[in-house]
Amino acid sequence: MTVTSAADATTAWLAHLRRKCADDVREFVGDRVREHFTGRAATPAATALPEFVAGGKFLRPLFAYTGWCCGAPDDEAALRAASALELLHCFALAQDDVMDGSERRRGRPALHVTFARWHAETGLGGSAARFGESAAILAGDLFLVWSEQLLRGSGLPAGTLARGWPVYDHLRSELAVGQLGDLVNDARALPAWGDVLDVVRRKSGNYTVRRPLEFGAALAGCDERVRAALGTYGGLVGEAFQFRDDLLGVFGDPAVTGKPVGDDLRERKASTVVVLAAELAGPRQRAELADLLALDVVDAAAVERWQRLITATGARDQLEKFADERVRHALEALDLAGLPQRPADALTTLALRCTERVR
Amino acid sequence: MTVTSAADATTAWLAHLRRKCADDVREFVGDRVREHFTGRAATPAATALPEFVAGGKFLRPLFAYTGWCCGAPDDEAALRAASALELLHCFALAQDDVMDGSERRRGRPALHVTFARWHAETGLGGSAARFGESAAILAGDLFLVWSEQLLRGSGLPAGTLARGWPVYDHLRSELAVGQLGDLVNDARALPAWGDVLDVVRRKSGNYTVRRPLEFGAALAGCDERVRAALGTYGGLVGEAFQFRDDLLGVFGDPAVTGKPVGDDLRERKASTVVVLAAELAGPRQRAELADLLALDVVDAAAVERWQRLITATGARDQLEKFADERVRHALEALDLAGLPQRPADALTTLALRCTERVR
Repeated sequence: MTVTSAADATTAWLAHLRRKCADDVREFVGDRVREHFTGRAATPAATALPEFVAGGKFLRPLFAYTGWCCGAPDDEAALRAASALELLHCFALAQDDVMDGSERRRGRPALHVTFARWHAETGLGGSAARFGESAAILAGDLFLVWSEQLLRGSGLPAGTLARGWPVYDHLRSELAVGQLGDLVNDARALPAWGDVLDVVRRKSGNYTVRRPLEFGAALAGCDERVRAALGTYGGLVGEAFQFRDDLLGVFGDPAVTGKPVGDDLRERKASTVVVLAAELAGPRQRAELADLLALDVVDAAAVERWQRLITATGARDQLEKFADERVRHALEALDLAGLPQRPADALTTLALRCTERVR
Repeated sequence: MTVTSAADATTAWLAHLRRKCADDVREFVGDRVREHFTGRAATPAATALPEFVAGGKFLRPLFAYTGWCCGAPDDEAALRAASALELLHCFALAQDDVMDGSERRRGRPALHVTFARWHAETGLGGSAARFGESAAILAGDLFLVWSEQLLRGSGLPAGTLARGWPVYDHLRSELAVGQLGDLVNDARALPAWGDVLDVVRRKSGNYTVRRPLEFGAALAGCDERVRAALGTYGGLVGEAFQFRDDLLGVFGDPAVTGKPVGDDLRERKASTVVVLAAELAGPRQRAELADLLALDVVDAAAVERWQRLITATGARDQLEKFADERVRHALEALDLAGLPQRPADALTTLALRCTERVR
């Protein structure tokens, strides 16, 4: 088998898993919607919720299930259990978009925008924006509840589940606590690089790669050596993933990100790329940075100025180098662990996706 | 034993249970706070969350544990499981106060107000009010997660828990779905009495009395006859509880409610008392009602006008009569069920608390 066909087989396997996960969560959420929204005054909830959950990349379930495959054979129930992490992600997205004031998600209006439009079109009293925000928060609550319910009812035996609960519980609290930390993480205060890296490690990196892998490995009862290797890989790839996500937030093509260009700049996120640019800036660049940070509104022209400035400081190249390094080290750690072939291949493919160039 | 001393014993038992529940949730939340907030940039979360959870009346755990006692002996683990409903209630309160714009809760600033004040005092960038709202939503998310975690780790055997999960799952989804329904329930649209009663039955009544009782009874494995009696009692007392709560929202003493007088009027809640007043109003009263509903801001003088109008329509007396009737019927249903003495006494005491006169 050539390298290419092995990579193709891995890609096909991951695509197959993603489809099954999407089917699982769409079916589960469809059942919940019928249970709770039948006969109710129509809101867009009954249609918007199932659509929202099926539209993602299912990265976290893929990492979780790959973790499972490091220690146990293929199992439909384990894949359903892994899918629970996508509902947890939907909870985070629905509520983060309200808190960050993001208007778009996955190339479509954010959930709070959908609810607000319905409110305005229906001609109800009160503020449509306020209604949209509250409704999206409640939709997020439902996703949070349903995630745990899907996991508990996944069909995994109680003894198997018992190994996963501590990781799952830690993950979901960490998610809310991390978002709380993000709220006080304002670009105008320009935190130091080390502090931002700490936030990346604790929040996004852990949440996207490391904890899902650990969750799957815990469910499968993987031994300490495998779990340690996955932990190392997960920490490094999680950081690389976040670097790339932050680069997308500044330079990403809206057709790829599903969000307006420069969205993180408009929201004044103290993301890694912004903070690194500040660290690398010379005196004149520093002055321009101060100018940009002082703007009341970040319009399209300001986004372009920001982008040019960040590129000129070398922060963009540097961050891509940081991401490449981390992925290289992660793959070295994998090699040493002697994992079964299929999850090892999948982890290689998933890691490389994290360093695809932005644009 | 005289009637008085039996009632005293019941009151003492309920007070004892409430203290144990408060200790359980305070300890559990304290552990979670230490797990997740140690070493983090200080926000008021580490102190505000444990204080918030211990300040309630623990009505829902008391109903749940009383349900348990209808079919099983006293059990510390079952009491911890019942306490999980208080954390679920904290989730609802923290988020509802954001959505309703309520400034006070339990005689203290609402959670979002506490976070907003901290933000303003710390001199962080951005909107303090917005930060406060987002932080309170996240605190609510943590309570929602921790409720399930407390229940799962209560110490009840898996087979016992398995009987409770369906009721618990239904309850917590119903709570979010009910709040979503409340968002479109605007006093200016003046829904019909039947529609409001339907909302009361499905949301508050079920949530406060009926589902907690069913939850405890399900955990204990009570037989169908007992569960049916508790269901009847729970439905009726739940409605009476909501009528009283709505009367408190209009006429309640802030020292008792912990909220400003006439809070529901300011928030334009289409509560039972407002809708009943509209149904009972004569032509002149109807005109004044239309006047009040058209006000942009409901100030103290408007609250007094509202109160006088509602009393004059007879809605206040009528609603108190409705509550009395429901409690009477609920106690009749209890009598027929032949429950063990202690839970029967507790349910009588708890029902009567729901019809204590407002002021």
